[in-house]
Amino acid sequence: MVPHLKTALDGPLLEIERRFLDLMPEIERWFRAQWQEHTPPFYGSVDLRNAGFKLAPVDMNLFPGGFNNLDATFLPLCVQAAMTAVDRICPDARRLLLIPENHTRNLFYLQNVAQIAKFLRLTGLEVRLGSLLPGIERPTPVELADGTTLLLEPLQRNGSRLGLGGFEPCAILLNNDLSAGIPEVLRDLDEQFVLPPLHAGWALRRKSNHFAAYDTVASDFARLTGIDAWRINPYFSVCSSVNFHQRQGEECLAANVDAVLELIREKYRQYEIEETPYVVVKADAGTYGMGVMTVKDAAQVTGLSRRQRNKMSVIKEGLAVSQVIIQEGVHSFERVGSGSEEGVAEPVVYMIDRFVVGGFYRVHSGRGPDENLNAPGMHFQPLAFATSCSLPDHCQNPDAAPNRFYAYGVVARLAQLAASVELERTAPVKEPLPCA
Amino acid sequence: MVPHLKTALDGPLLEIERRFLDLMPEIERWFRAQWQEHTPPFYGSVDLRNAGFKLAPVDMNLFPGGFNNLDATFLPLCVQAAMTAVDRICPDARRLLLIPENHTRNLFYLQNVAQIAKFLRLTGLEVRLGSLLPGIERPTPVELADGTTLLLEPLQRNGSRLGLGGFEPCAILLNNDLSAGIPEVLRDLDEQFVLPPLHAGWALRRKSNHFAAYDTVASDFARLTGIDAWRINPYFSVCSSVNFHQRQGEECLAANVDAVLELIREKYRQYEIEETPYVVVKADAGTYGMGVMTVKDAAQVTGLSRRQRNKMSVIKEGLAVSQVIIQEGVHSFERVGSGSEEGVAEPVVYMIDRFVVGGFYRVHSGRGPDENLNAPGMHFQPLAFATSCSLPDHCQNPDAAPNRFYAYGVVARLAQLAASVELERTAPVKEPLPCA
Repeated sequence: MVPHLKTALDGPLLEIERRFLDLMPEIERWFRAQWQEHTPPFYGSVDLRNAGFKLAPVDMNLFPGGFNNLDATFLPLCVQAAMTAVDRICPDARRLLLIPENHTRNLFYLQNVAQIAKFLRLTGLEVRLGSLLPGIERPTPVELADGTTLLLEPLQRNGSRLGLGGFEPCAILLNNDLSAGIPEVLRDLDEQFVLPPLHAGWALRRKSNHFAAYDTVASDFARLTGIDAWRINPYFSVCSSVNFHQRQGEECLAANVDAVLELIREKYRQYEIEETPYVVVKADAGTYGMGVMTVKDAAQVTGLSRRQRNKMSVIKEGLAVSQVIIQEGVHSFERVGSGSEEGVAEPVVYMIDRFVVGGFYRVHSGRGPDENLNAPGMHFQPLAFATSCSLPDHCQNPDAAPNRFYAYGVVARLAQLAASVELERTAPVKEPLPCA
Repeated sequence: MVPHLKTALDGPLLEIERRFLDLMPEIERWFRAQWQEHTPPFYGSVDLRNAGFKLAPVDMNLFPGGFNNLDATFLPLCVQAAMTAVDRICPDARRLLLIPENHTRNLFYLQNVAQIAKFLRLTGLEVRLGSLLPGIERPTPVELADGTTLLLEPLQRNGSRLGLGGFEPCAILLNNDLSAGIPEVLRDLDEQFVLPPLHAGWALRRKSNHFAAYDTVASDFARLTGIDAWRINPYFSVCSSVNFHQRQGEECLAANVDAVLELIREKYRQYEIEETPYVVVKADAGTYGMGVMTVKDAAQVTGLSRRQRNKMSVIKEGLAVSQVIIQEGVHSFERVGSGSEEGVAEPVVYMIDRFVVGGFYRVHSGRGPDENLNAPGMHFQPLAFATSCSLPDHCQNPDAAPNRFYAYGVVARLAQLAASVELERTAPVKEPLPCA
């Protein structure tokens, strides 16, 4: 079950939505069984795209950065879910160290950190913030827009333990995606829980590993529900030796774009879909919407301008792109807002442990239904709990209002489950201890 | 952590509240450890009384009857908590049989049943209602005030399994307190989970066992928090051979009333409390506020009028009272409402598994602060989530608004924990199977 949130669509239920609602008991039971076998990540957020004929995740973030965009009414759900997670991971926990991203000037991001710290404190944990920034040499207060203050403190490594001055945490929660690599100070911590594990960071993580795991999960789920897995799963392919600057790997890219487009065309023919197929080319280790390109024809990738090549070359932390994923594009036919705020929207679903705890729309007024919305100019619109009917006497049966957000919660949880499988598959093999 | 609800009190925090908020990390950690050792009941509700100098549970219900009195915004919390409970009890569950009380004409009560069925269905379970009423011989729809319909179905016993026509549940959830005894049809079900267990029903349960377990829990908790356990624990005593009709056991009653009053007087002297001590005499197996009497002097119980004796003799299902508990009375200094709705109030806190999922005030306009409010004429006022401040710029620090409902959630969870201990202590010893 997922909270009943008010989505942008208000027409009749789409076929997938209807199917999921009808099969809710089977679906929930299936999830329960899956979570017996796979440990959910501590938290995660999933970008979904709803094309009507297809509802699929296009990105899965293991270091969610928008808890502050959730409606305030979701706080109790976050706290309760976090309590369950803490219970399982370390019931004895007293202190938790939260390590945020290094951008101390991004007040929106820091508001997210404040929100995470808040719900964790409400589970009864003592929470303090340790910064990876070399500039933080003493406890440094940062004032937020809402008047509250975050205290960033320098990390202190003590043998195989990490802490702060006078603060020995039992667990370390990363909200830093480690794009810049795994810092020395985080390596070889063998007594403390690091959540999510280090290999979840973009230093090691690859989108293609995630979507390979999602393939498995989506196929199993499609069998359960009797749908074509394609309805919830975007095709993808990978090119591993690309250098946009040096125009290296363009043939691989063109061939893969062609191949994925052809697969999509086949499905569109099969289901008599009139839209124009497209793919999205993304850095396989990229995030923040950087290094992303929409492509409708293979010729586009061989004829990139210098400006386009520059844009595709660099992702967060100035890292060079060398491996790219070519992912089927999923149109977003949801629009929210009015006036200058009106635009194409994609739902972002937030999860803690195995629970959906809220969501919001990422909206971009200047982008089309086949474009990446994670770009400057986007804004966020919190999803609120749906009230089945504003005039109670107009609806005789309160159970009758279908929870159309349910389908979003199902697909988001499939991605969360795929992340569990992905992290299992990519976990580093522990070096055996040398014999004494 | 408990949801941040708006309580009736709005003065400065009382000493106990302050202490609990200050010690939140220790308290939550302690609860986590306790729930590792004790399995929480599936659900429960606790009647609290807040005298300012004392905040204590006076009753603990293992078959909560007021889920319909919770504000609608609590539904997602109920669902999430129930998912955790189902996960632990039977992750493989698909179907659940809910057995309600037999009063099919009490539409308020049936609305509670509908609410329980609703949140259970939202966890993905198929839920149907089986009735213990002999009159229910075929599926019988009952229309509720909100226009929805409950379908009551006759129970079908099949060997050691219980179900309905075409419905084989994996778990059976009782919302029937079994005051009338344990029906044959529920005995010796050895393959299905019965929640709560049969000995939680009033056929076997005794308030005195609960409060004996609460003694243990409250003492441990008082040590943890450095408070006098009396601040959260009412004195009590038991008389086991009472027959009000035949005026039997009056001496025992008088002696125990005297003894408990003397203990209270001592505490009042110690803490310089000016109120008049009183005790509440209740049937030890009673519920529904029946068989309850407020006593300020032992002479009262030896000089009962025929009418008073009749009133004390009979509890739910017409059962005769034979054992009574003499419990320290806790004044309620909370008042809510306005006009004719204004009255003395006591908080009722609802829990599922180990989570506080909501609460409401039981209000009685015609009763005093030292009287039982569970009586005809009472009404219910849902507790809503507290919004820290209506004008955001008036409060620079949103974390600063203390959650005074927290203390209520703590004491309610102590009672929930005591119920776990009570059910462990009173569990019937399984007969060993005879050798073949």
